Amino acid sequence: MHAYRTHNCAALRSADAGQTVKLSGWVHRKRDHGGVLFVDLRDHFGITQIVAGPSSAAFPVLDRVRAESVVTIVGEVVLREGGAINPKLPTGEIEVRAHEIVVQSAADELPMPVAGEAEYPEDIRLKYRFLDLRRDRLHQNILLRSQVIASLRRRMIDQGFTEFQTPILTASSPEGARDYLVPSRVHPGKFYALPQAPQMFKQLLMVAGFDRYFQIAPCFRDEDARADRSPGEFYQLDFEMSFVTQDDVFAAIEPVLAGVFEEFAGFGGRQPWSVTKGAFPRIPYAESMLKYGNDKPDLRNPLVISDVSSHFVGSGFGIFARMVEAGNVVRAIPAPGTADKSRKFFDDMNDWAKAEGYAGLGYVTRKGGEFGGPIAKNHGEAGMIALYDALGLGPDDGCFFAAGKEKDAAKLAGLARTRVGTELGLIEQNAYKFCWIVDFPMFEYDEDAKKIDFSHNPFSMPQGELEALETQDPLTIKAYQYDIVCNGVELSSGAIRNHRPDIMYKAFEIAGYTKEQVDANFSGMINAFKFGAPPHGGSAPGVDRMVMLIADEPNIREVIVFPMTQKAEDLMMNAPAPVTMKQLRELHIRVVD
Amino acid sequence: MHAYRTHNCAALRSADAGQTVKLSGWVHRKRDHGGVLFVDLRDHFGITQIVAGPSSAAFPVLDRVRAESVVTIVGEVVLREGGAINPKLPTGEIEVRAHEIVVQSAADELPMPVAGEAEYPEDIRLKYRFLDLRRDRLHQNILLRSQVIASLRRRMIDQGFTEFQTPILTASSPEGARDYLVPSRVHPGKFYALPQAPQMFKQLLMVAGFDRYFQIAPCFRDEDARADRSPGEFYQLDFEMSFVTQDDVFAAIEPVLAGVFEEFAGFGGRQPWSVTKGAFPRIPYAESMLKYGNDKPDLRNPLVISDVSSHFVGSGFGIFARMVEAGNVVRAIPAPGTADKSRKFFDDMNDWAKAEGYAGLGYVTRKGGEFGGPIAKNHGEAGMIALYDALGLGPDDGCFFAAGKEKDAAKLAGLARTRVGTELGLIEQNAYKFCWIVDFPMFEYDEDAKKIDFSHNPFSMPQGELEALETQDPLTIKAYQYDIVCNGVELSSGAIRNHRPDIMYKAFEIAGYTKEQVDANFSGMINAFKFGAPPHGGSAPGVDRMVMLIADEPNIREVIVFPMTQKAEDLMMNAPAPVTMKQLRELHIRVVD
Repeated sequence: MHAYRTHNCAALRSADAGQTVKLSGWVHRKRDHGGVLFVDLRDHFGITQIVAGPSSAAFPVLDRVRAESVVTIVGEVVLREGGAINPKLPTGEIEVRAHEIVVQSAADELPMPVAGEAEYPEDIRLKYRFLDLRRDRLHQNILLRSQVIASLRRRMIDQGFTEFQTPILTASSPEGARDYLVPSRVHPGKFYALPQAPQMFKQLLMVAGFDRYFQIAPCFRDEDARADRSPGEFYQLDFEMSFVTQDDVFAAIEPVLAGVFEEFAGFGGRQPWSVTKGAFPRIPYAESMLKYGNDKPDLRNPLVISDVSSHFVGSGFGIFARMVEAGNVVRAIPAPGTADKSRKFFDDMNDWAKAEGYAGLGYVTRKGGEFGGPIAKNHGEAGMIALYDALGLGPDDGCFFAAGKEKDAAKLAGLARTRVGTELGLIEQNAYKFCWIVDFPMFEYDEDAKKIDFSHNPFSMPQGELEALETQDPLTIKAYQYDIVCNGVELSSGAIRNHRPDIMYKAFEIAGYTKEQVDANFSGMINAFKFGAPPHGGSAPGVDRMVMLIADEPNIREVIVFPMTQKAEDLMMNAPAPVTMKQLRELHIRVVD
Repeated sequence: MHAYRTHNCAALRSADAGQTVKLSGWVHRKRDHGGVLFVDLRDHFGITQIVAGPSSAAFPVLDRVRAESVVTIVGEVVLREGGAINPKLPTGEIEVRAHEIVVQSAADELPMPVAGEAEYPEDIRLKYRFLDLRRDRLHQNILLRSQVIASLRRRMIDQGFTEFQTPILTASSPEGARDYLVPSRVHPGKFYALPQAPQMFKQLLMVAGFDRYFQIAPCFRDEDARADRSPGEFYQLDFEMSFVTQDDVFAAIEPVLAGVFEEFAGFGGRQPWSVTKGAFPRIPYAESMLKYGNDKPDLRNPLVISDVSSHFVGSGFGIFARMVEAGNVVRAIPAPGTADKSRKFFDDMNDWAKAEGYAGLGYVTRKGGEFGGPIAKNHGEAGMIALYDALGLGPDDGCFFAAGKEKDAAKLAGLARTRVGTELGLIEQNAYKFCWIVDFPMFEYDEDAKKIDFSHNPFSMPQGELEALETQDPLTIKAYQYDIVCNGVELSSGAIRNHRPDIMYKAFEIAGYTKEQVDANFSGMINAFKFGAPPHGGSAPGVDRMVMLIADEPNIREVIVFPMTQKAEDLMMNAPAPVTMKQLRELHIRVVD
């Protein structure tokens, strides 16, 4: 018989009755029923009920050990009777009558229990992560993460991608966030940087002729934490392809993402969630800003924002009329089926908008075709009917209005769309809705600096290439740049890259940079492009965010096995920590107060 | 037609003749045959010959572009005739008559050519790694590495292991090498360390109840480079298992390693190399030190060292007799079939041993049964025959002798075994021979400190557990510790871990450490073990070394996509590099001269 187990704790069935078996695991729960001990023995795979009567040699030992001790049990598999059968447990038809026991590891009093669903403070959970990870929800989340990553790898390889490990000790990359630095012992006064993303390396791999690269890539940014962003490190499904158009990139990654979400749509035994079928909708950036008020629309929300500025030119509702005259806009957010909502519902929304720092959120109510509220009253019924017809709204639909400078109105309308959709219960449940945001503007006017600057990524290829840069108004030029969005979460940015030094110098010139400045800052990339670079593009969907979405967890720490706190501390390993003077001397640095 | 290609450069065959196709790739080689241009167009997949006559629109462009420019060709697939067929090329039956061409990226004059087999200085190769990686050998090595890692992952998952990503920004681990440190911005004066190995984390994953962990794990050690060790980072196939004995660990990993080596045994089109079949031989540490002179024996070498000290007790060869009397040893290294070797062969071996810093390497020659040399003469024929009979040597076999303190003699004998085996051409070619070294001693006597200390890893489980520690002479206690060796290369150390705080305190006590010292240094691990730890063990074979062995490359830089120099510099990305005062201030450090 094996030293520790003949079966794991999820293996035994009624067919095994009569066998003598050996199980090892953790003492999950212990109950004393009239002098007979019932112990749930737990391992990675599941739970088996152990029974020890007073005559069993295991009884006094089991009676004594604390929960979470590790024990090995030898005993006989016995069928449970009638009401003792537990249909919720795969092993629920049997129990094991313990004859022998070995305590492999006796547990002390626990700082937090493992069995049960109670919530515990974050710092306790993180300090004793090895206990927290034994709890079913977190255990399943972490396994999900592993399975998602294995599935991503398999799907990428099936699509002809090859995984490469790019350096982690490397140079600062122009990603815009703060670098983590590593002092060099061998080169006094010099530092490595941990990569914010392997952007340069993946482009160099294309220049080196490796057609399709991917990597489950650790990335490092010294930024403050958010619910959906860990401090320190995070993982991207980083990929890049050569000799491709934007369509090729979309066609390569859509089935990978949709496939993974479909594979795990029934996570945790839930009814499988639906996933976008076929090609993901493509929404131009400008359209997204108008219809959803942002560039990461949650398409589970059926509400669509409209610009209704023209309706208020010369309107009896003077506030909007004057705003439109002054070059502002009015955006309408439908509130369908709100005939029976109280005035308070509408006023609360207005109050919320004010609390968010906006002037307010106007509204029109309608019940049985009759309009209500000051806007409707002043704008007049004919105007209201024209507006409602244009928006396709009916006799029992209300409507909110966000007015102001285009950027502000769009943003408020976007927030209101989410809030109205949520309050009215319109958000489609149990669905993953993907889309692409495309046609990002290449340049924007920087109001502060009073100059044209890149709006997003200077290294994307402008649509129309050199000719566009030389002939078009820069503010009308779009880039081959795209975001993947799922349920309102931006999974990644990507682009067809600018692989041509001549086009890159020209783009930077438009943004006010000289050739010398470009060479000084980006020489590595530009020099490589001078020795034969293929057209290429890619993206880098965030792995942690994908797992959060699939696990339906609001906090990224619930899908990372050993996360840091929001203050970038590892409470279990005690990091960061002071180091010795000897270490600092070897690294040629000193700590400064 | 696609913007860049209808086929890749390895796709076209004679059946495609007559088709109009589009290909994109790099101009590999260009030849002018009487006014007709022949261009080898290369991409990731292969090479296709492009032909452009003087009337082709592509002619003047191809004539002008430099090698390694990236071009897109539209043309007609044409069958090659007779002698023009190239059987070495998969596309060798056809060529593409170019009609149109687009230059996607014009190459400047190259710092090193891509076509051809010429060697280039390491610094040029590393600075222009993106060019070096286009060369076939390196390109294939890097793809091999990716395929080996993908295969390892697949095999580990098939064995029931789950991959986890453990933190990279973490605390110093007690691995013994120098840490890379990362100053914390948020916590002034404190530092993260990059993990030398995820040892603590993988053990905590076992404590957390995840039965079988693995990871293709990046590891970081601030050590100087060697041929088989990169400075900075390297990768391990890190794994750990719960509720296992040493036998279980061996049974889990042997098929993974042997399977991968078999899968790629025919790398580069060579005749497949043989791989150890079935269970790997297990060689106790003491036996390995005796028979092979080290703990990483190359079993491709059939020579086996023997201890012949007893033969020289009271021998007429006074040097050895006196040495043995003084407690030294004599080790014999057979030199089979050396009857016709000149005296110089034996003397050279002696000179080599002296050059290595040893007193010398004694020898006996034998031809047709007749012994030669001063040792044989003084030891006497009867004694020599007895010694030869004991070693199983024949009438035409020579023999070398290493004498001295046991450690020194073993080491010299090991080196001589390799040298004799190599010189006599006895090393089996085209084979991968695996073995385990087992039964490492738990403790050793530290001659300098005049005390007992751990001989290898303090965290391994001693054989016999607590009872052995309490009752046995510590120097006779063995550990459940083991190395995997292939062809004389140590791939990894591993162990069944000591998961019991009581046994750990006792082991440290024997090595002279108090409970307080243990708690101060290893509290993270020991505290975790106090809340229920399963028996567990694992290992971590080096991925880079595996790929080196499979690729048959002597230098680790040939199997890493973007390696650093021996001085830990990235010449392509220019790392490490100076940083700004602002960055240093944010990190609360200053550079010291």
